[in-house]
Amino acid sequence: MSEYAFATFLHACQARVEHVLDTHLPTNDQPPGQLHAAMRYAVLGGGKRLRPTLAYAAAHACSIPLEQIDTAATALELIHAYSLIHDDLPAMDDDDLRRGRPTCHKAFNEATAILAGDALQTLAFYVLAQDKMNPPAVRVRLIEQLAHASGSLGMVGGQALDLASEGVELDLVMLENIHIHKTGALIRASVNMAATTAPHLSIEQRTALDHYAKCIGLAFQIQDDLLDVEGETAIIGKRSGQDIAHQKATYPALLGVKPAHEAAANLVNEALASLRLFDDNADALRNIAEYIIKRDH
Amino acid sequence: MSEYAFATFLHACQARVEHVLDTHLPTNDQPPGQLHAAMRYAVLGGGKRLRPTLAYAAAHACSIPLEQIDTAATALELIHAYSLIHDDLPAMDDDDLRRGRPTCHKAFNEATAILAGDALQTLAFYVLAQDKMNPPAVRVRLIEQLAHASGSLGMVGGQALDLASEGVELDLVMLENIHIHKTGALIRASVNMAATTAPHLSIEQRTALDHYAKCIGLAFQIQDDLLDVEGETAIIGKRSGQDIAHQKATYPALLGVKPAHEAAANLVNEALASLRLFDDNADALRNIAEYIIKRDH
Repeated sequence: MSEYAFATFLHACQARVEHVLDTHLPTNDQPPGQLHAAMRYAVLGGGKRLRPTLAYAAAHACSIPLEQIDTAATALELIHAYSLIHDDLPAMDDDDLRRGRPTCHKAFNEATAILAGDALQTLAFYVLAQDKMNPPAVRVRLIEQLAHASGSLGMVGGQALDLASEGVELDLVMLENIHIHKTGALIRASVNMAATTAPHLSIEQRTALDHYAKCIGLAFQIQDDLLDVEGETAIIGKRSGQDIAHQKATYPALLGVKPAHEAAANLVNEALASLRLFDDNADALRNIAEYIIKRDH
Repeated sequence: MSEYAFATFLHACQARVEHVLDTHLPTNDQPPGQLHAAMRYAVLGGGKRLRPTLAYAAAHACSIPLEQIDTAATALELIHAYSLIHDDLPAMDDDDLRRGRPTCHKAFNEATAILAGDALQTLAFYVLAQDKMNPPAVRVRLIEQLAHASGSLGMVGGQALDLASEGVELDLVMLENIHIHKTGALIRASVNMAATTAPHLSIEQRTALDHYAKCIGLAFQIQDDLLDVEGETAIIGKRSGQDIAHQKATYPALLGVKPAHEAAANLVNEALASLRLFDDNADALRNIAEYIIKRDH
């Protein structure tokens, strides 16, 4: 896929999920208005929409119409948005900037931010349960996958491991374990949920997609760490240098900056290799893998 | 049902859901251990188990075997437990005592309490999605009901309205609106989810159960307010007099103590009247209605 075609694809996915999210989110004129305003503020405030984009790209790779994965894409982004609200809270990472704007608890208040996060998580499962584009047997499997990826054995567990690791000297295995859970699980679910809506897929194809997702999930995190070292606050939209300030273990800190770049590149190559079972329809997935280590925010 | 038989029934429901909860909760030796310990601490630390008990009693009224509602009962209690953890946080109600023990953020820390609440919510939907006792079409309906009852248009919305009302002079309609959402929605879901697993129920029976649940939900809240005025910290297991301390509107404050008792009794009578479509199998529901205004904690 040309750089132009890929940029068009990314933009189309972002616009598409933005529209579906807007449809599913309660409006500010429904009480409680402030809660709904906080939910919309946190979700509709931009962002890369990596998880929905991955879901759409994986659906395309599986020859599934994008309508069939709209709700899963929405649910993934709702879970991601709720986790960002809670991670930014003073008791957690204590961040005041996100996507270039005040974090939810800064723009509203802490109580509203906690509740907005809670309600966004609930909404994710609500929309999946109501997803008329997939039969109930597929819907329960999607809910199971999303819940497993985001619960205490997935994303939330990763955040708990991450918090517990502050000030602790981590080795590479421990660091990888945090990221496999904290960001990797939901990225993996984004691809695997799309595969769940495709009944005709072979087991080999499912395993290949899962492996692709595992590799790019880790590459994504390495790049995130690199951006924290090398990026500028204005471009990445959140304060850079936070990892050093919090004495957090990172890939560049453990490996060095250049080997961290190489590790990310190797993972992307592994991800690309596992897509050999797929035809041109998987080109968007291929471009995403490359984009992940090229991005500057 | 005799007082003795009802006490036996309550105890059996509590023991039953405690066992199922224990089975579904991750153990402390699975990492992250502290997160799992906090989840278990918050869920398995006693409590009345009103919502599971209501679900079991409603299932019995519908001649549904209790096994069929075990997972829904578990999910209801997981949602309830997560909401208590988050409500107790410093940014919310700032309580340090719950069920006679330190609240989760006091026993652990704030970050762990936020994450434990998040993971318990996720787990509720996970267990429902995996519930092998009900077909997928019933499972998605159960998930939909639970999510609707606990999201921004239900429980979380009620908590947001409640927080927004501190220091504001409320009338009875506004107070009732808070409680219909904050506690009423999940109590109503407890009964309605049991009805969802009973395919043979008539629409009249479903409506009657829903009305029963609406009435006892409100009666429960009035009694809660009365206990805050009249109860003793040692018995109710949380600090009494907190509503006055937080300048919160309550039924006894708006109506007076005696009329508040009468209002609760009237609601219980209305609940009982709506069960006339049901036979002796609904006796546990009848006893619960009466228990709600007799309880001292």
